[in-house]
Amino acid sequence: MPKLMIALDVLNREEALKIVNEVKDYIDAVKVGYPLVLSSGLEIVEEIKKICNREVICDFKVADIPETNRKIAEIALKYADGIIVHGFVGEDSVKAVQEVAKKFNKKVIMVTEMSHPGAIQYMQPIANKLAKMAKKLKVDAIVAPSTRPERLKEIKDIAKLPVMTPGVGYQGGKIEEIINILDENDYVIVGRSIYQSENPKDVAKKFKEKLNKNKTK
Amino acid sequence: MPKLMIALDVLNREEALKIVNEVKDYIDAVKVGYPLVLSSGLEIVEEIKKICNREVICDFKVADIPETNRKIAEIALKYADGIIVHGFVGEDSVKAVQEVAKKFNKKVIMVTEMSHPGAIQYMQPIANKLAKMAKKLKVDAIVAPSTRPERLKEIKDIAKLPVMTPGVGYQGGKIEEIINILDENDYVIVGRSIYQSENPKDVAKKFKEKLNKNKTK
Repeated sequence: MPKLMIALDVLNREEALKIVNEVKDYIDAVKVGYPLVLSSGLEIVEEIKKICNREVICDFKVADIPETNRKIAEIALKYADGIIVHGFVGEDSVKAVQEVAKKFNKKVIMVTEMSHPGAIQYMQPIANKLAKMAKKLKVDAIVAPSTRPERLKEIKDIAKLPVMTPGVGYQGGKIEEIINILDENDYVIVGRSIYQSENPKDVAKKFKEKLNKNKTK
Repeated sequence: MPKLMIALDVLNREEALKIVNEVKDYIDAVKVGYPLVLSSGLEIVEEIKKICNREVICDFKVADIPETNRKIAEIALKYADGIIVHGFVGEDSVKAVQEVAKKFNKKVIMVTEMSHPGAIQYMQPIANKLAKMAKKLKVDAIVAPSTRPERLKEIKDIAKLPVMTPGVGYQGGKIEEIINILDENDYVIVGRSIYQSENPKDVAKKFKEKLNKNKTK
């Protein structure tokens, strides 16, 4: 079954660590972004790993020139197991991050199409090309949207790489609609539905069970 | 004459503050990115302002879903005078940052086309559309490349907004080739040529003089 990844987009160290502690038995990976890292520092990655001993990915959506991408990766990958980069800034910018990741033996995950409505304007028209580029560059995984299952399937079919798919829950993505597209190397990302709930542990458990039971073929 | 902005992409607080102190008489603005902020914390913005009393812009190239963009802007604009966002992620993501900036009375600067070679792949084909979107959304300024003067001119003509143009110096952009495109509301961004030099003060002074003297019309 696909892995469950929590998007820990809270703004407070204590809250973040409390949630990780509650959900740790039901998650396979943690995704931290700039909201948390700017509030708490990158050391939060080590603290999370200490609590749950799971893979932690920096979702920095790195989108700069190669030189700057390289510097960001050098700092982030000292702590995290992988880093999410944008593909639309071009092959050279992605390669710069891959070179750093190789040195640290860490993962590079490349965004193709995002999950929000605005992604339809400029990202969707080039997302299949980005999926091809991801395959060619042999990144470790790609990001594709759970909010558009047909796009998720198309992009995954092109890239033939593990997928991390955001948008499940609050943004409207449904596990039932994507479960048959995914396999055990893929990650389903859930954020607000877990961390904003009254009982993150129960919600994480339910998502984990859904991932386990819902495969229909 | 256009303003001189230093891109302070060093990885160390002490080094950053030392350079600001050396160049403060010749620069009009400072751009800090994630390399420095991840190493030193956002408080570095306040320290820079204390030394030079100049505008400080967070070049975070924010490129996420509206909800996450909003959170990043909320944190960054507590410190900085403006924030750089990507336009290619769509109108909704840019608007989310604009809403926060309005509350703080700060600036939003939107990237159209970047200065590195990889920007030609996916960004250049949509950069004119992004320039139109920037005009429509009334962002405070746009980013366009000094490394391609003809593109800088075209994008500026479409957006009719102040431009911050990176790529001068190390990346190959030349003040002589862009000075006639720019006016006093625009910013020329110089990074490595200043901060990697033996004498940042002298180099900054020379760039400032070039901006002052080189206008030929």
